[in-house]
Amino acid sequence: MKKLLTVFFICTAFIANAQKSTENLVQYVKPIVGTQRMGHTFPGATVPFGMVQLSPETDTASYDLNGHYNPKVYEYCAGYQYEDKTIVGFSHTHFSGTGHSDLGDFLIMPTVGKLKLNPGTVDKPHSGYRSPFSHANEVSEANYYKVKLDEHNIIAEMTTTTRVGFHQYTFPKSDSAHIILDLMSGIYNYPDKNVWTYMRVIDDTHVVGYRLTNGWARTRALYFAMTFSKPFIAHGYKNYSKREVYGGFWGKFNQTKDFPEIAGKQLRAYFDFKTEEGEKIKIKFAISPVSMDGAVANMNAEATTWDFDKVKNDGQAQWEKELHKITISGNKELKENFYTSMYHTMINPTVYMDVDGQYKGLDQNIHKADGFTNYTTFSLWDTHRALHPLFNIIDPERNADMVKSMMAHFDLSPEHMLPVWSNSANENWCMSGYHSVSVLADAVVKGNAPFDANKALEDCVTTARHKDYLGIGYYMDMGFIPDEKDANSVSSTLEYAYDDWCIAQMAKKLGNTAIYDEFIKRSENYKNVYDPKSGFMHPKTADGKFRKNFDPFTTINQGFIEGNAWNYTLYVPHDPASLIKLMGGNKRFIVYVDSLFSYNLPDKYFAETEDITKDGIIGNYVHGNEPSHHVAYLYDWTDKPWKAQEKIRMILPKMYKPTPDGLGGNDDTGQMSAWYIFSSLGFYPVAPASDQYAIGSPAVDGATVQVGGGKTFAIHVNNQNAKNVYIQKIVLNGKPLDKMFLSHADIMNGGEITFFMGPKHK
Amino acid sequence: MKKLLTVFFICTAFIANAQKSTENLVQYVKPIVGTQRMGHTFPGATVPFGMVQLSPETDTASYDLNGHYNPKVYEYCAGYQYEDKTIVGFSHTHFSGTGHSDLGDFLIMPTVGKLKLNPGTVDKPHSGYRSPFSHANEVSEANYYKVKLDEHNIIAEMTTTTRVGFHQYTFPKSDSAHIILDLMSGIYNYPDKNVWTYMRVIDDTHVVGYRLTNGWARTRALYFAMTFSKPFIAHGYKNYSKREVYGGFWGKFNQTKDFPEIAGKQLRAYFDFKTEEGEKIKIKFAISPVSMDGAVANMNAEATTWDFDKVKNDGQAQWEKELHKITISGNKELKENFYTSMYHTMINPTVYMDVDGQYKGLDQNIHKADGFTNYTTFSLWDTHRALHPLFNIIDPERNADMVKSMMAHFDLSPEHMLPVWSNSANENWCMSGYHSVSVLADAVVKGNAPFDANKALEDCVTTARHKDYLGIGYYMDMGFIPDEKDANSVSSTLEYAYDDWCIAQMAKKLGNTAIYDEFIKRSENYKNVYDPKSGFMHPKTADGKFRKNFDPFTTINQGFIEGNAWNYTLYVPHDPASLIKLMGGNKRFIVYVDSLFSYNLPDKYFAETEDITKDGIIGNYVHGNEPSHHVAYLYDWTDKPWKAQEKIRMILPKMYKPTPDGLGGNDDTGQMSAWYIFSSLGFYPVAPASDQYAIGSPAVDGATVQVGGGKTFAIHVNNQNAKNVYIQKIVLNGKPLDKMFLSHADIMNGGEITFFMGPKHK
Repeated sequence: MKKLLTVFFICTAFIANAQKSTENLVQYVKPIVGTQRMGHTFPGATVPFGMVQLSPETDTASYDLNGHYNPKVYEYCAGYQYEDKTIVGFSHTHFSGTGHSDLGDFLIMPTVGKLKLNPGTVDKPHSGYRSPFSHANEVSEANYYKVKLDEHNIIAEMTTTTRVGFHQYTFPKSDSAHIILDLMSGIYNYPDKNVWTYMRVIDDTHVVGYRLTNGWARTRALYFAMTFSKPFIAHGYKNYSKREVYGGFWGKFNQTKDFPEIAGKQLRAYFDFKTEEGEKIKIKFAISPVSMDGAVANMNAEATTWDFDKVKNDGQAQWEKELHKITISGNKELKENFYTSMYHTMINPTVYMDVDGQYKGLDQNIHKADGFTNYTTFSLWDTHRALHPLFNIIDPERNADMVKSMMAHFDLSPEHMLPVWSNSANENWCMSGYHSVSVLADAVVKGNAPFDANKALEDCVTTARHKDYLGIGYYMDMGFIPDEKDANSVSSTLEYAYDDWCIAQMAKKLGNTAIYDEFIKRSENYKNVYDPKSGFMHPKTADGKFRKNFDPFTTINQGFIEGNAWNYTLYVPHDPASLIKLMGGNKRFIVYVDSLFSYNLPDKYFAETEDITKDGIIGNYVHGNEPSHHVAYLYDWTDKPWKAQEKIRMILPKMYKPTPDGLGGNDDTGQMSAWYIFSSLGFYPVAPASDQYAIGSPAVDGATVQVGGGKTFAIHVNNQNAKNVYIQKIVLNGKPLDKMFLSHADIMNGGEITFFMGPKHK
Repeated sequence: MKKLLTVFFICTAFIANAQKSTENLVQYVKPIVGTQRMGHTFPGATVPFGMVQLSPETDTASYDLNGHYNPKVYEYCAGYQYEDKTIVGFSHTHFSGTGHSDLGDFLIMPTVGKLKLNPGTVDKPHSGYRSPFSHANEVSEANYYKVKLDEHNIIAEMTTTTRVGFHQYTFPKSDSAHIILDLMSGIYNYPDKNVWTYMRVIDDTHVVGYRLTNGWARTRALYFAMTFSKPFIAHGYKNYSKREVYGGFWGKFNQTKDFPEIAGKQLRAYFDFKTEEGEKIKIKFAISPVSMDGAVANMNAEATTWDFDKVKNDGQAQWEKELHKITISGNKELKENFYTSMYHTMINPTVYMDVDGQYKGLDQNIHKADGFTNYTTFSLWDTHRALHPLFNIIDPERNADMVKSMMAHFDLSPEHMLPVWSNSANENWCMSGYHSVSVLADAVVKGNAPFDANKALEDCVTTARHKDYLGIGYYMDMGFIPDEKDANSVSSTLEYAYDDWCIAQMAKKLGNTAIYDEFIKRSENYKNVYDPKSGFMHPKTADGKFRKNFDPFTTINQGFIEGNAWNYTLYVPHDPASLIKLMGGNKRFIVYVDSLFSYNLPDKYFAETEDITKDGIIGNYVHGNEPSHHVAYLYDWTDKPWKAQEKIRMILPKMYKPTPDGLGGNDDTGQMSAWYIFSSLGFYPVAPASDQYAIGSPAVDGATVQVGGGKTFAIHVNNQNAKNVYIQKIVLNGKPLDKMFLSHADIMNGGEITFFMGPKHK
């Protein structure tokens, strides 16, 4: 009977899935979400994990915590701010949701009338090639962006393949139409990001070139190949840098007009056309991290058509396939939140290799990916928490390729370390910890390791023993980082302890007892920075004494990075039970976490919080940044797990809205969105590298997760609504679940779970 | 009988050759010749046509016509000026004898004592790492250079393979010995040549990196791999450029000391050692135009030993082989002049590809040379005259590879032109004409064309029809370049006419009548700028009138480049007979040329003459620059060829001495030296692309030229000395020669020629 019932349920799941699979899910994706204020997402076109991410630039140099222009505060990271009134053009590379900036390569802008090669200023938009625009004339979809450029009466449309951007510009009738290629433009150009650029006009429809920048990536080269659908009738450039050595020799040709090639530090080029009313000029724009020849090969492989709609549709079909990995039941707003989040989890990391497998390695040499797709844009301090665990469920093969990319990074790392923040063949060293070990360990522990797992363990161990890096030496020798040795001594100690636990889990899985012993011991180091007197993780000096001047509310100079002691004290994701004990037991712990959510943080503390709007904070709980993402789930280790359910259902609608200002903090290359996916499905990976998920409170009415091999994990949610947030009962594959945890196998084996919800906690 | 005699003579030649072949000829090579004043040669180490040319830098920014420091006058081109008192270090790339500068990559300097990372100044040598030195402690040989660095009491020695520089530094005992790698240093750095540099310390004996410069080559990248014979005990760097974007992130490591990698615009690095008295630290330093991996591969292929003497001896053996292609009889001074000239003809062009055949093309992509060695450093305005014709006799295979390199350049040229001045995957456009066609035509006409000769002709024709380039359009449409359209209208018209004749000869050889007809007609365009009234080639305006204000002595604004009307009027190398007619016939022509040599040029004219010392001028005849190199031989077309003999024997000792100041002008990558080789052997290629050589007056007592296939061309000179400069009789292969011309076949078929000399002309 039991067996039959299971079969019945599975069949139901399949039918539900089959029914849902035809629904257009791209319709729910709103790339515009997060473009206002601090989300740092972009509204432009990309396929999943595309190397080209083609999006408008609104040229906001910097903005303040409310997303308003302020040159002295925050960087403009994704190229587009919803409140801006003008567009300067469309560039081919973007980060999604980061807190620092780079990219924005190869800006293209169509104009008519008198040629202006300067972008002009926000205050005087007519002084340059920029154009005012209106959101009323803007369409932003997965792999499609459209906007009317009011200044020029041009409709701009764009779509992409993995390595090629497709532009389609519908012009008015003009004897003086231009397409500008601005090689100077870039995101966060301060102080002088361009190192060198080169451009070669092969004929009147083909141009190639490259750009070398010194930005967040210290030495980043990107190559391009550009094809016009219609021959230009003239072309030229202007060099905005100071005079060059021997510049006069090249003057033997008139290089300004119709030059065959040009190189320099600050170049803007233009291409002239005559257009009829409604005439479309299209551009294919391929990029390569390897060479101009590589860009041409990428173009030839991926851009075989001038049919813009076909390219758009092919790309949207890729999105449909990815989005269908989780189908949900719920209202439109829920689906918009959910599929926009799904979309945002599939922008970064990005493919970083040519169609022939060649890519630039961290050693600045050209390498060939052997049997995997090479990725870059790893914001691992953020993404190890939920993004990579999500990939391990719905896209394990890609996650394994990402692990292989990280191991290839290790092999070429001059410091012999796994990536911290990998950006286009460069290491940014952004943020703390060595959280790549979490990603590698999570894959190994969860059985998703089609790579040399023992080599992966070695890479982790080598990284974790790098005594010269950010206090690791002190940490290894003393069990903590002394306050006087590092500004972030406490958060680094906590993060290393978690990472070390990951390494221990991996070693355990691989049967390496010596490494397990070494690192399980290190993983307890968090205890060394807990001060029972203050009741917080607390900066400690080398003499073993806790610092006297201490403010647990501020994030400034208290030993923590991007967080205060109140939040960071809870950062022991790998051993909440011990943490609870350390903090005085179940009751005191609950009071502590309750207080975090209910405290009314004075404005003076808010003002110093990076990368998040005030909306990204609930009480003193900071959801707009990552260190607290696991916090609500910690109630599962107390006797009041219903408090987790309550808090999660409070956070979800507050922090995620299907509107431009719908994200309360940086999306951080998808981590914020991955939290949404897990939490709205009802569970969350509190400690990646364990095979356990803590249960929260599902916000969907039901869901089917494709877990590979044709299997599905069906989530049924009975009687859920905004008030019925409390779990009354859980049935897993026909059996009551008597704990607040799911295992990875529970999900990946396929099956079904049913949540019975009610308005009161049990 | 006749036959027997010939056999006898040939046997004699063979015996003579066999006897001479064991003589050490490297002993006569004095690389120091031309390093004083305007020769612009360098004294350092290289194998023939080496990619690495490792030589000391004396850091003279610029100097005047007498070779004295003057920052406002001339560039420092080869890195070394004999009169300088200090050496700043040893760099790996140099031009030999050019008039403009670039290169000087990767400067290495050993020091002891307090670390100084600035080179210091000439006035205060102790303020930096530079060292005083003395010529008494200097040895400069083919592929070997040695000097004592007085400041540091270090003996520096260097030698090379084609792609690897070998350094050997003998230190005193020191606890503080350093080897500095200065990535900022370069030749003619003004105003800001370095674009970007990168360095990666792999371990304590291996370093790789690259440098991107914007110099005479607009965009030049060079990669390196460096290996120390002894592990350094510490290393560090200083960045002399302004702060970098996000520079702080890399500060997570202490990168100043023992950094793993660094990148920036202005870097100097150091490596620390402890040394015993007399301890040798050696460095292998490989370069590549392709990549760091390429440099490593070049290192592995060529630098398999640490035996410095072996590398030196192997390289000198290469020189012996090359030098033995012409063995001569004569005194020591003659041999020093001759073999130093031979040496200087084999420095440039330079190999420009890795051991695997990969090289960077003019399109900035990586290419693979298919069946040839790729070369760069083509100073064709100079070298088409005698250097490439010399190669067609003694090294035809290499010359054909150079032609193939030039054709590969054409294939990648965005302007679709053969090289004008090719420098490391860049076109400098230096000087006028399209003289590569002379090189291609000379090879084809002389039967040295193991390449697609018809394609070569096409490349020439396409180049010659490039209407946008330097007045070619006017030249094609009007038969001359109007004075008002180009500052060098007359010299360009003359040069194009000669080049066009070359194309015609090539077309004739290939049976292409249409091209022959077109270009033989163009080759007569020189007539259009001859003014019978002034008696000179004369600037002419578009209305067909000759310019009124005209000074045939000055080189400034008279329609000529690097020459005056007096010299340039004789520039019709392809048709002296017609020129003589045009200028009023035999008698008037002789008076004209006589006057050229006897005129006492006022100092005011001398002061404006570029690239030559006053010693480079005889009367108004300018031997120190190329346009007059054929002039003395023009007497062969008159009834007084003995005047050619007289003038040539006057020029030879005046212009070529085996002393540092022995060259009267830029050696121009070997053209000046090639003139010496030909002229001292007794003949000269007045018009390359003809198969004729005009006979002068041999200055050797005899010579044997290896012409390939085991054949030799023996030159016997009877009764020659400084007074006996006049030819009494010539016997070619046993037959009296009754003309003043030799054919290419006469030489290349092997055989012998005997000059009978006397004190009076016949």
